[in-house]
Amino acid sequence: MYNADILIKNGIVLTMDTDNRVIETGSVAIKGDSIIHIGDSLKKFKSNTVIDAAGGIILPGLINGHTHAAMTLLRGLADDLPLMEWLNNYIFPTESRFNPDFVYTGTLLACAEMIMSGTTSFCDMYLFEGDAARAAKAAGMRCLLGEVLYDFDSPNYGPVENGLKYTESLIEKWKGDPLVSIAVEPHAPYTCSPHLLSAANELAQEKNVPMIMHLAETENELLEIKKKYGKGILEHLSSLDILGPNLIADHCVHLDGKDLDLLSEKGVRIIHNPESNMKLASGIAPVPDMLHRGIKVGLGTDGCASNNDLDLFSEMDSAAKLHKVDRMDTTVLNALSVLRMATIEGAKALGIDSITGSLEKGKKADIIILDINKPHLVPMYNPYSHIVYSARGSDVSHTIINGKVVMSDRKLLVMDVDEVMAKSRSRSREIIGFLLS
Amino acid sequence: MYNADILIKNGIVLTMDTDNRVIETGSVAIKGDSIIHIGDSLKKFKSNTVIDAAGGIILPGLINGHTHAAMTLLRGLADDLPLMEWLNNYIFPTESRFNPDFVYTGTLLACAEMIMSGTTSFCDMYLFEGDAARAAKAAGMRCLLGEVLYDFDSPNYGPVENGLKYTESLIEKWKGDPLVSIAVEPHAPYTCSPHLLSAANELAQEKNVPMIMHLAETENELLEIKKKYGKGILEHLSSLDILGPNLIADHCVHLDGKDLDLLSEKGVRIIHNPESNMKLASGIAPVPDMLHRGIKVGLGTDGCASNNDLDLFSEMDSAAKLHKVDRMDTTVLNALSVLRMATIEGAKALGIDSITGSLEKGKKADIIILDINKPHLVPMYNPYSHIVYSARGSDVSHTIINGKVVMSDRKLLVMDVDEVMAKSRSRSREIIGFLLS
Repeated sequence: MYNADILIKNGIVLTMDTDNRVIETGSVAIKGDSIIHIGDSLKKFKSNTVIDAAGGIILPGLINGHTHAAMTLLRGLADDLPLMEWLNNYIFPTESRFNPDFVYTGTLLACAEMIMSGTTSFCDMYLFEGDAARAAKAAGMRCLLGEVLYDFDSPNYGPVENGLKYTESLIEKWKGDPLVSIAVEPHAPYTCSPHLLSAANELAQEKNVPMIMHLAETENELLEIKKKYGKGILEHLSSLDILGPNLIADHCVHLDGKDLDLLSEKGVRIIHNPESNMKLASGIAPVPDMLHRGIKVGLGTDGCASNNDLDLFSEMDSAAKLHKVDRMDTTVLNALSVLRMATIEGAKALGIDSITGSLEKGKKADIIILDINKPHLVPMYNPYSHIVYSARGSDVSHTIINGKVVMSDRKLLVMDVDEVMAKSRSRSREIIGFLLS
Repeated sequence: MYNADILIKNGIVLTMDTDNRVIETGSVAIKGDSIIHIGDSLKKFKSNTVIDAAGGIILPGLINGHTHAAMTLLRGLADDLPLMEWLNNYIFPTESRFNPDFVYTGTLLACAEMIMSGTTSFCDMYLFEGDAARAAKAAGMRCLLGEVLYDFDSPNYGPVENGLKYTESLIEKWKGDPLVSIAVEPHAPYTCSPHLLSAANELAQEKNVPMIMHLAETENELLEIKKKYGKGILEHLSSLDILGPNLIADHCVHLDGKDLDLLSEKGVRIIHNPESNMKLASGIAPVPDMLHRGIKVGLGTDGCASNNDLDLFSEMDSAAKLHKVDRMDTTVLNALSVLRMATIEGAKALGIDSITGSLEKGKKADIIILDINKPHLVPMYNPYSHIVYSARGSDVSHTIINGKVVMSDRKLLVMDVDEVMAKSRSRSREIIGFLLS
């Protein structure tokens, strides 16, 4: 008999491992932060904490590959507007007034929403990311994050030359943390000078952390780069020696086959954000062509100002459906491949697949349980179809991160959610004040 | 002091009336099946049943303009397959073995899902619709439904010539029912002979009920019609004198500007089913062009085999986002216009706007309450944005249909939902048996 800290039993286990192994009535044993056993029996294990998944689905926690978590505070502030009006009249004027507590509160709210919709890891880019890191840590979420860098003054670190120093201090501060990792995150090729991009890349290489950047999100971005540098966007980045296995590129909507050949050859990883690309009318990323080339592709929600939620279940549904109609082919991006994008492939895209993204002995215990005893999840023929096309974030009953139960029977255990919501509402009143002043 | 049967208080009331009147802290009084008062005070009313909406949103129940309710039993049976393989190897062989109890059970399950996601009225087309009507009635849902008619033998009414007789018997049986109305429902121009379409149209005219039909759902349908009749699809229907204000056409994906001019001129109404059109790779309906021409457009989920849920909240989200990326314009189909499609415009499309679709004194009390005290619905700047882009069906706390509370605090009051789920699971095992035999 072995002692475990948590036993989960009686669920359909979707491991999302290399073989997509499924255990029809399966169990998982957790000790400390790790999975120590997966199988159809727990006879050899005992524990004081036993979670009965009772016919539900046990699967790896989802991975939100790209977001701006604290933008929860801007959720629904200004929708359905022309892009430049949205940015210039609402988003930028508000963000310029943000301070550490806005980001701390907004990120905590985001963590509440993510945990309650089955996300256990997220990748973040925003302002005051030291405070975002504090919030993620307080919420017990796994994250990879970095301060957004660009050619303008930042309300956080001030003039552009301080951005990399701030990033470096984050890297030092969080080194070795079991949950929080830091990346170097220049905003995009059109908002960062070649000098800044090169320096960011150097820092990332030197510190051996990923570099994360928006790339080819809109057509306009490509035109701007062409105008500024007389080059295509990838030609521009190639000339700066930035394309490589260290780069995680968000969006990649406006890239053609030749571009994707290059990204594939260079080992660049991509995060796909279908709902944001739809809502902001950015375009439809050529995801089937990325996958065809073996590029590692994860799934992200983007920030709440352009989605307007952090629910990866609806994001999976949208991804699977969008590419079918785009390619006029019902077989494109099947449910399993989309769920892989939101779990193990997303982990690969972020470079965290050795610790999370699948249920395997020895990996960290990032696990969610879906309650399928609800009318909209009956009957069930195929759990992958169910997860992608029928389930919602609100069907997640339990969320476990790094071996710790952070939500149990839909009750958040890691924060006072009423207090977080109250503080967020209070921040939103200040935001309205900013816009009226 | 007036007696009311139900008072709802303390919510933001979105009336969805002609002026889109919003009452910030509003109340609704219900007597019998009807709304007798909407305002910011209930001082003049008393009732034994008071529902405190506590900062939530009070809005009209949603209207699912097109579904095949009992296909809940086929939810996720076969996804991501080529269309013909899906239909011929899974859907048709299963449906051919259906009997009244399959449809009764599947429709009850659908009603549970719809009520729990805020839908109060639905429009149905399927087999054994007498049993669908029984189920809707048992669940207390408002519906417009009709037996599907086509050139083949039906497992319900047998040879084609019996279909209209069966429909006529439904019309007689349900005449004057407060919840159930009947339509004449030939399947589509490519599955119904000109003779059947004309006879169906005649019956609809004679009985003064709507005629409902799939139209221009796929490119292939247009090619088939061209091949069979040497005409465009609308030319074909025009020659049969079928286009008119009595016709409700589902899908209308493959129509051009000239076609829409004709539908607008003739007063044909349309139901848009974005998620089904995406998942089946049918195409993207030209909805902005329909609305531009003043065509009445409602929103539908289609059946669960091609969606795979009946949640109009996610359908609204998909509709708003899909057309933005399709037109590369963020201002297309704003949140308010999409919510109108799912409420009052949907009611107009189904011809039931005099009784439902908006909160107005004298209308039937079809009302839902959204609980917005949840992390993914905080903060709130704009209730329309919230409903379309952030809320899910599971955020509906109360559903009232025809003055009767059918769900209270997420508890279904009109059926034993565990029993319905158990029966549905048992039916699904029989379906697997059909496919293996």
